[in-house]
Amino acid sequence: MFKFEISSKCSKTLARTGSFTTPHGVIKTPTFMPVGTKATVKTLDSKDLNDLNAEIILANTYHLAMRPGEDLIKKMGGLHKWMNFNKPILTDSGGFQVFSLKDKLKITDDGVEFQSHLDGNKHFFTPEKAMEIQNKLGADIIMAFDECAPADSDQSYAKKAMERTHDWVLRCKKFHKNESQALFPIIQGVIYKDLRVESTKFMTELDLPGIAIGGLSVGEGKKTMYEILETIAPLLPENKPHYLMGVGTPEDLFECISRGMDMFDCVLPTRLARHGSFYGDNQVEHLKNLKNRDNENPLRKDCTCETCQNFTRSYLRHLIIENEITGLRLLTIHNIYFLFELIKKIRKSIKENQFPHFKKEFLNNWIGMEK
Amino acid sequence: MFKFEISSKCSKTLARTGSFTTPHGVIKTPTFMPVGTKATVKTLDSKDLNDLNAEIILANTYHLAMRPGEDLIKKMGGLHKWMNFNKPILTDSGGFQVFSLKDKLKITDDGVEFQSHLDGNKHFFTPEKAMEIQNKLGADIIMAFDECAPADSDQSYAKKAMERTHDWVLRCKKFHKNESQALFPIIQGVIYKDLRVESTKFMTELDLPGIAIGGLSVGEGKKTMYEILETIAPLLPENKPHYLMGVGTPEDLFECISRGMDMFDCVLPTRLARHGSFYGDNQVEHLKNLKNRDNENPLRKDCTCETCQNFTRSYLRHLIIENEITGLRLLTIHNIYFLFELIKKIRKSIKENQFPHFKKEFLNNWIGMEK
Repeated sequence: MFKFEISSKCSKTLARTGSFTTPHGVIKTPTFMPVGTKATVKTLDSKDLNDLNAEIILANTYHLAMRPGEDLIKKMGGLHKWMNFNKPILTDSGGFQVFSLKDKLKITDDGVEFQSHLDGNKHFFTPEKAMEIQNKLGADIIMAFDECAPADSDQSYAKKAMERTHDWVLRCKKFHKNESQALFPIIQGVIYKDLRVESTKFMTELDLPGIAIGGLSVGEGKKTMYEILETIAPLLPENKPHYLMGVGTPEDLFECISRGMDMFDCVLPTRLARHGSFYGDNQVEHLKNLKNRDNENPLRKDCTCETCQNFTRSYLRHLIIENEITGLRLLTIHNIYFLFELIKKIRKSIKENQFPHFKKEFLNNWIGMEK
Repeated sequence: MFKFEISSKCSKTLARTGSFTTPHGVIKTPTFMPVGTKATVKTLDSKDLNDLNAEIILANTYHLAMRPGEDLIKKMGGLHKWMNFNKPILTDSGGFQVFSLKDKLKITDDGVEFQSHLDGNKHFFTPEKAMEIQNKLGADIIMAFDECAPADSDQSYAKKAMERTHDWVLRCKKFHKNESQALFPIIQGVIYKDLRVESTKFMTELDLPGIAIGGLSVGEGKKTMYEILETIAPLLPENKPHYLMGVGTPEDLFECISRGMDMFDCVLPTRLARHGSFYGDNQVEHLKNLKNRDNENPLRKDCTCETCQNFTRSYLRHLIIENEITGLRLLTIHNIYFLFELIKKIRKSIKENQFPHFKKEFLNNWIGMEK
């Protein structure tokens, strides 16, 4: 039911193109997955996603389990039917969200007790529970329940969290029976290379349909992230898609694809849009900037998205300043389109064995957002 | 440049169908105009309006003059180009909004001094200024500057406001030179029938391309509104479109069309949507109602709008509860589509001389919103 095929490889980096077949269609890799936290990519509906040629989106297990609850979504026919989105969906395990609740949680080897951000009610997530919820949601790709330890964890705690994650993935694998859902394990180990290596070996041996790298891009710094990827990349199973969780600036896409990554998700394009920011000609720009007031250009020169084809910076700036929902939506469309086009161009460059050249050309021109 | 032609008349009521030709196209009457206060119908863009087959929309002079200012919009090529909406647009005169500022204004025969709701800065609107702003905005139909006196004004004040409105319309007519914009006068007179008759006669004699009735649906009660319309309808110029300002519940559309009205605008369909309400099978319903939680039906049985074709009440309820912009937009699309379809059916029934029958059938089934 799931099949990953590599179609081309870069001769100078670890970049590759491929396709991952799922029950709801084929995903071309590398791929960028817009985040639909609460079963909608903010400001968009499923028709918009189809118009944008989205190949896969992500939804959040934690948020949907808290409200409206996985049982309702199952009763309504599962996420695909409920959202009326008939392409692949990936649900995270809820781990990342639960562990970000910090002072409201109690971690044991059995699972995690936490208080809902909505009403403070207590919940208990276990690996089995995370599987059960995701089975009910019905996504094509589901994630193993992991402990995402903070970037500043000491090595001793990082090791403990990693071992717990290893224990939990075995429990997930054992519990998960639905063959129409691909279970991906998540490599942990914070910033410690020996732990990351150990975790990569452990997760690779499980021989699941794909493999994810979690706990990066959470404050450890870009240089550290790239180094960790370089360390573990040679150990990853070549014939499985490699999903780097939570990453997605344009510069990170290039750097991580060149280090063998295939799948990405990030809230940035949608979140930037809701703050009036957009991918401009060579950097992220802010629409409220006074220079856009009487600017009749599109957001980005030569951009072929719906927004740029139809509206000027001047009009869009007005919408953002007036807090008009229309503006947030039009920027969201542009930002997602931009990343999709970028990924398409990256795929093309890999196929033509021009990826390092295209990467250099793009990054020379692009003013990145350091962090 | 402007031409109103009546194509059919109801034999039992004053309902009629017609077409009003403007520089940006023909408007079939009766017509409903969605309100695009700040140069956008909230949550929608011009492509959405075209998809909905909107024939004309309204924009607000007061809001646009306050921000971003009419000079910017003129510099950007006028409202049509700026919004990328190439069908007819109507701008109100700003009078209604200015007079709703109440304690922040000073009325003289020359004009109105008021403080902006944005920053408290003082502004002075005169009939000439209202024309100048609307000339710069560039709508197809522009409105004369009027004093919209409160529904509870005594007769003496109502008379004074009416006389001022008459004086002002003459100044508007004198100032307005742009032949590609049709100037409509606004009948005032609060709830006093003799004043309304006097104002109707005065405005009719101006022989402008259309005529509007203002100051109704502002708290005087439905019965009073209908009676006033009955009183003035026989005096209105038959060969001009009659625009009843600010009216637009389904029941009011029927009642006012049967009293000779041709054009309507109302924020209700868009505002209801943003409060999670929608035109249901036979009344306005609230999506948050628990009965919709697992309801797989569309918002309205047999509705052919994009929203009803693609999404269930259950999913839409979730979006509204989660405050997702997508939900507000999908309800807006439904609500506007519903009114457009209703108006289309009303036009058809008038053409087939079945309007009183259709009106009775609809209103027997529809549970209205009293006020």
